Parts: sequence; structure tokens; C-alpha cells
Amino acid sequence: MRTRDAFLSHCQASLGALRQEGRYREFARLEKLAGRFPTYRWHGPQGVREVTVWSSNDYLGMGNHPAVLAAATRAVAEHGAGAGGTRNISGTSPLHAALEAELASLHGKGAALLFGSGYIANQAGISAVLEALPGFIVFSDAKNHASMIAGMRGAKAAQRVIWKHNDLADLEAKLAAAPPGAPKLIAFESVYSMDGDIAPIGAICDLAERYGAMTYLDEVHAVGLYGATGGGISEQDGTAHRVDLIEGTLAKGFGVLGGYIAGDADVVDYIRSVAGGLIFTTALPPAVAGAALESVRVLKRDPARRAALAERAAALKAALDGAGLARMDGPSHIVPVWVGEAELCRQVARRLLAEHGLYATPINYPTVPRGTERLRLCATPFHTDAMIAELVRALRAVLPRIGPGVAPEAAIGMLAAE
Amino acid sequence: MRTRDAFLSHCQASLGALRQEGRYREFARLEKLAGRFPTYRWHGPQGVREVTVWSSNDYLGMGNHPAVLAAATRAVAEHGAGAGGTRNISGTSPLHAALEAELASLHGKGAALLFGSGYIANQAGISAVLEALPGFIVFSDAKNHASMIAGMRGAKAAQRVIWKHNDLADLEAKLAAAPPGAPKLIAFESVYSMDGDIAPIGAICDLAERYGAMTYLDEVHAVGLYGATGGGISEQDGTAHRVDLIEGTLAKGFGVLGGYIAGDADVVDYIRSVAGGLIFTTALPPAVAGAALESVRVLKRDPARRAALAERAAALKAALDGAGLARMDGPSHIVPVWVGEAELCRQVARRLLAEHGLYATPINYPTVPRGTERLRLCATPFHTDAMIAELVRALRAVLPRIGPGVAPEAAIGMLAAE
Repeated sequence: MRTRDAFLSHCQASLGALRQEGRYREFARLEKLAGRFPTYRWHGPQGVREVTVWSSNDYLGMGNHPAVLAAATRAVAEHGAGAGGTRNISGTSPLHAALEAELASLHGKGAALLFGSGYIANQAGISAVLEALPGFIVFSDAKNHASMIAGMRGAKAAQRVIWKHNDLADLEAKLAAAPPGAPKLIAFESVYSMDGDIAPIGAICDLAERYGAMTYLDEVHAVGLYGATGGGISEQDGTAHRVDLIEGTLAKGFGVLGGYIAGDADVVDYIRSVAGGLIFTTALPPAVAGAALESVRVLKRDPARRAALAERAAALKAALDGAGLARMDGPSHIVPVWVGEAELCRQVARRLLAEHGLYATPINYPTVPRGTERLRLCATPFHTDAMIAELVRALRAVLPRIGPGVAPEAAIGMLAAE
Repeated sequence: MRTRDAFLSHCQASLGALRQEGRYREFARLEKLAGRFPTYRWHGPQGVREVTVWSSNDYLGMGNHPAVLAAATRAVAEHGAGAGGTRNISGTSPLHAALEAELASLHGKGAALLFGSGYIANQAGISAVLEALPGFIVFSDAKNHASMIAGMRGAKAAQRVIWKHNDLADLEAKLAAAPPGAPKLIAFESVYSMDGDIAPIGAICDLAERYGAMTYLDEVHAVGLYGATGGGISEQDGTAHRVDLIEGTLAKGFGVLGGYIAGDADVVDYIRSVAGGLIFTTALPPAVAGAALESVRVLKRDPARRAALAERAAALKAALDGAGLARMDGPSHIVPVWVGEAELCRQVARRLLAEHGLYATPINYPTVPRGTERLRLCATPFHTDAMIAELVRALRAVLPRIGPGVAPEAAIGMLAAE
């Protein structure tokens, strides 16, 4: 059989299976409306309609902040649309350099290094560390993001030991069982994106010190959002100086695009010099760097926006609890509403959008384990009390019979019939 | 020894070795000036100075095209600075969808899929193909880009067979030696970035058909630049319909940011559904998608800009040849000037910049093999005859004694003494 035919058959069969399982992803066409966040225009099968988005990762609405937009526009006018080269091939502008300095300062580190995305920062950064010394063992939290796992897998010689999510006893047992002389890296996140829980950074650093391990902390869902100046959970709890490498994004709390790592100047310079995902890719456009720089600076001096996020998240949680809707509890701004089955999750999201004008992404495998499917909600500072009340009403309408007593399969039948 | 100390020592030793070898990369701070391309402001140790950039990958100057800038500015005003989510989590705007449709049409394919960069498109796209069927063998041109190699390495079960660069006889011998029943992929580029030569796409497709292989073509250095509507070398030579997957970038000829693949609709939908580098990363900002869309559309109907690029490249080559400067010959717009030694290459570039206000990136290992170090020059439609003359004068001044008769080591000594 010719490869093309065999491959096409595989593609078609896989797509069929995804559809069957309710895991086929359709990307809803959502038009952001600057100045009206979180209201978007949904371009759906029945035409265009205004909807409220409950699943944006622009957690603080900084992608719509007038100063950020002005910085982007100014940089486009002054420097054009693209960087025109890799960082090494004419693509490093003074804006890139200023942004890296600002990020280093945000985390109290000697240097920072930009990547095209947080995904690449994790993949390239973790690989670069693990490939540096022979016999490296990486201790990876069980819920680490796919990009971190990609970084660990990329370092083929490194051994990966997975410890139970946020479980200090399990981490310590695994550190203690490893050869004392082997280089060790503990890789974990601060806020876990799909559950909304938070790691005990200080206690993990205690273990790292006890067992001579380095630490790599993904603050992607925390930078801009937590800490006095937006430095993340590690700023909030005073542990940033104990973490060796902090990784963050410019695409969520800061509302733009790109990822970075921050750490000791020589370490960052080393990663800059060896990471393929940095060397062989075009630099971020000057307008992206300029907008992100403005966003970081604005958030450094704007604790009110962080306080508003916390207040809105608490209001959303209280409203869901008051309505008896099953959410997964956690201390962060991320509020997962439990569904527990892929096709049901997809249908609930479909009905929220089509019948109620509310967008919430169904989160299915492989993003979360099978059987733990959920809607992932975030109340930004721009989600009003009225929006929260509307959401709760809609969830009660489309999740009427979900609860401990109803098997997901039965609930699917009920929903599918409607 | 504690991991942190061992790792820091490794970093410092490696950086020292890079400096020793002349391979330590300093990212020159170059400020693009929209409307004045290829003139940039260089922020150097002695202050700010205007320079002419000869190593931009914004090959056609589209990053400074007024319509592209207007599209970027409009999209920022209407949709904000960032996408606010992954493609699946509220990050797909109508601009993303329109751009994908435009790119599919550009290559005459059923569908196209955007990625954050060409690097990711290659890495995720090639891995997704090779992981689809057991026993896949990928036949990889020896000069394929690092991102393609990353994609092949990512598919751990696939076997990688490297064929001699652009050598049809070697490719055929290797295809013939492989098990006839094994799935096969031939992965290659159209224009090779560091040499400027071009692959015989049609003849490679002949071999692919003879041996039942699929084809994956990287057109990163060709899209926008070649073909009647900018579809690349495969459009120019009428082979696009014979290639299974075409990969391209929006960051070079189109002057913005991002990468993509185009192919059969089901194949692209499959890759969309399984590629981690797509699923787990924030979508390109609407402004980037909007600017790129405008750029693709402008270049579809603007063959004059492509003709100007070809004319300027020919003028540059003629001027270098007329001055007796050693360049590596090739039919494309990329013009490598031979240096042959890392430290010498770095020093030549340093003197061009500091003494002559000309920026050309020194290309060293690992981007090219050791001993083949070079300056990589590109004359865009905006490089004037006067700029070419100035460049040739400067190269004659800083490369005075390089030639067949002088060993690089001797030349370094001469330069270092100046």
C-alpha cells in the first residue's frame, strides 16, 4: 500500500474515532472586541452573534488595555510588522532587550530570555538544562503541562521520575531513592491550569536544598496575576530567590504573546547559546515586544487589577456554590466546573453557546485525564455581577441532572434528546 | 556536588569555550525603522548609529509595507493585543480562519493550519506524520533545517535516513534499499537558507511516486518570493499538486510572524487534532494574523516585487563577482560570502558594522558545518545600487587577503592585528 493512502486512511479513521468519542475539537470563531472584553462576536453556523467569553486566558484583560494597544500601535508605526530575522540575524530590537531586562527585574533574577511562546520556553529551556550534565534526573509533578513534558522527553538521556501532584511526601521519597550524586531537577508549576490549585513552592525548595536539586518553576498561570508587582506566586510567597529558573508567559496575564525564562545571568546566557527553539526561529515582532513591555510595566504598579481578579473569582465561586453547581475547589482564579464525560462536556458547551450566548471551552483528554472532563471558567475583572448571574442561570439550565446520582451516560442521553 | 553548582560550572565553561572558538553569539541591537527599510538604528557600545542591514529575512520588505502595517494597526484597534487563548480556548478569530483559507488557496491545497512559527510547524507537523503509522522511515536531505530534524527526532519510533544534499541518485539508492512495505516520507526544502541552492522538486516527486513515499516540502525561504502568486518554488515549477505537505512561514517573505502547513483537508485536520505544539499554545495575535493575511494577498497580485528581488539579487552577485569576492554560487536570492572560519567570520562582521555601518550576520556552527562559516547576504527590493557599491567596497576592505591562497588562520591574525 502506498504511504499516502495508508496515511490518509489513518487520518480519516482517527478523526472518526475522535468524533465518536466526543473529542473532535471544533475551533469556535470568536472575534475579540477591543474595549468590550469579555464580549466577543461569535461567527457561528447561524451567523454572527455577540457572546460573553468565560474561557479567556487574557485573565486580566490586558490584551485590551489602552496603554498596551497604544504601545503595539506605536511599535507597528515605528518598526513595522515583523522582526525580520532570528534574534541572532538582525531580529533583536531594543524593545526585546528592554523587555528581557524588565522580566529579569520582575522575578529578581540576573537575566531573562524571550521565546516565541511559553510552550517553546519550557520545551527548549528544560531540554537545555537536562542535556547539560550526564545522568540528570528530572522530578516532574504528575500534572505538569505538555510543554514541560516535551522538554523532558527532548532530553533523551535524562531520566524522568513523576511524583504525585503537589505531594511533598511522594516527592521526598523519590528524591531520597535517587542516587545522591546524580544531578537533579525538580520541575513544577505554581498555578495548575486545569485544576486551579497551587504548589507549595517553599516546601518544594526545602526538599530541593535537602537533596541538592535545582528547581524549575512554571508560573505561566500566575505572572501578572499574583505578587505585589505581578511576579507570580513565587513573589507572593517570597520564594522567587530560592527557585533556580522561573518560566512565564506574556500571552495570559500580560495579554499579548510569547514566553520567557528568568534565572542566573550565566545560566540564561548558556540557554540562549544552545537552545535550538530560540536560535532557529524568528524573533517576536517589535510590536509584540513593545505591547508586552508596556503590559508588564502597567501591572507592576497596578495591584488594583489583581485585587479585582481575586474578588471576581471569589464572586463566581460563591455564585456557583450558591446554585449547587459542582465545581472543583481551588485557591486560584481558575474555576473548573465538573462534567466528567467528553461527549457530555462538548454538548454542554455547545448548548451554552448556541442557546445562551456564553462561551466556555469543553476541556477533554489529552488536556485532562479521561473521566475528568470539565468546563474551565475564569472571571476576569471585566465579568460583571450580571454576567455571573447569567452564567449560573445558563449552567443550571444545561446541567440540570448532573450530580452524584446521575451517571454521565444517562445525562448524555437526556441532553442529546433535547 | 550540588546540582546548581555543577550546572553553573558547566554553563560558565561552555560559554568560555564558545568565546574561545569565536562562536559566542552577541545579539546586535538593531532598531527597524518602518518606511526606511533596510536602514536600521544600531544601538552599539558607542551609541546609536544608522546602518544598512544586509541580513534581514524580511526578503521583500513586506514587514514595512503600508497596507500590512495598516492591517496590523486596524486589528490591534479592533481586536486588541493578543489572542487571549489557544486556538481551542477562545483563540480562533475570523482572521485566523481567513488566513488559513488564503494559505490553502496559495498552495492549491484543501486546507492549511497556522502554528506559532515555522519551527513549530516543522517540529509538530513532521512528528505528527511520522507517529501516525508504525515503521515509518523518513528520508531527510542532509541540509534540512534544525526544526525539521527536531520533528523527526520527536517521533522516536521512526527511522531517519539521511540522503546527500539535493542528490537524486543517493535518494533513490536509499529508497530502493528500504523495505518496500514500510511507510516512507521524503522531507526536504525548496530553497536552502544558508547555501541558496534549490531542490529539484519534480524529480524528487518522481522518486516518491516510484517508491510509494509521501513528500514534505519546506518552502520557508521561498513563499511570497517565487511563483506567479508567491506560492514558492513548487508554484514556479508547477509541482505543488504533487507534494503532500507544504510548510511555509509568515515571518520571512511575508514579513510578519508564524508558520503553517498546507495539504489535504483530512490530513491537515488530523494534524490539527493531534499536534501538541498547536493544541497547547496561545494562538497568534489577531493583529499578526491580520497583517499576514494582508501580506499574502498583496503578494499574490504583486509580481513586480518578486521581479525586483530577483533583479537586486543578480545585481549583488554581479557586483561581488566583479570585485573578485568569493561567494557561494546559487540560483536564489540568498548570497553567501565565504569566510571559512568562525572567529574570522565574527571579526569580519564586527568590522563591517563598527567601521562601515553595514550589518551582516556571521553564520557559524551549528547553523552551518564548521569550516564553512560565511556571511549570508540578501539584497531586498529596497537595497539600492549605491548600497551594493558601498557593501562591495567595505567587503574589499575587511576581507583583503581572503582567497584560495590564504589560510583562514593567517587571515585571522592579520585582522586581529588591525
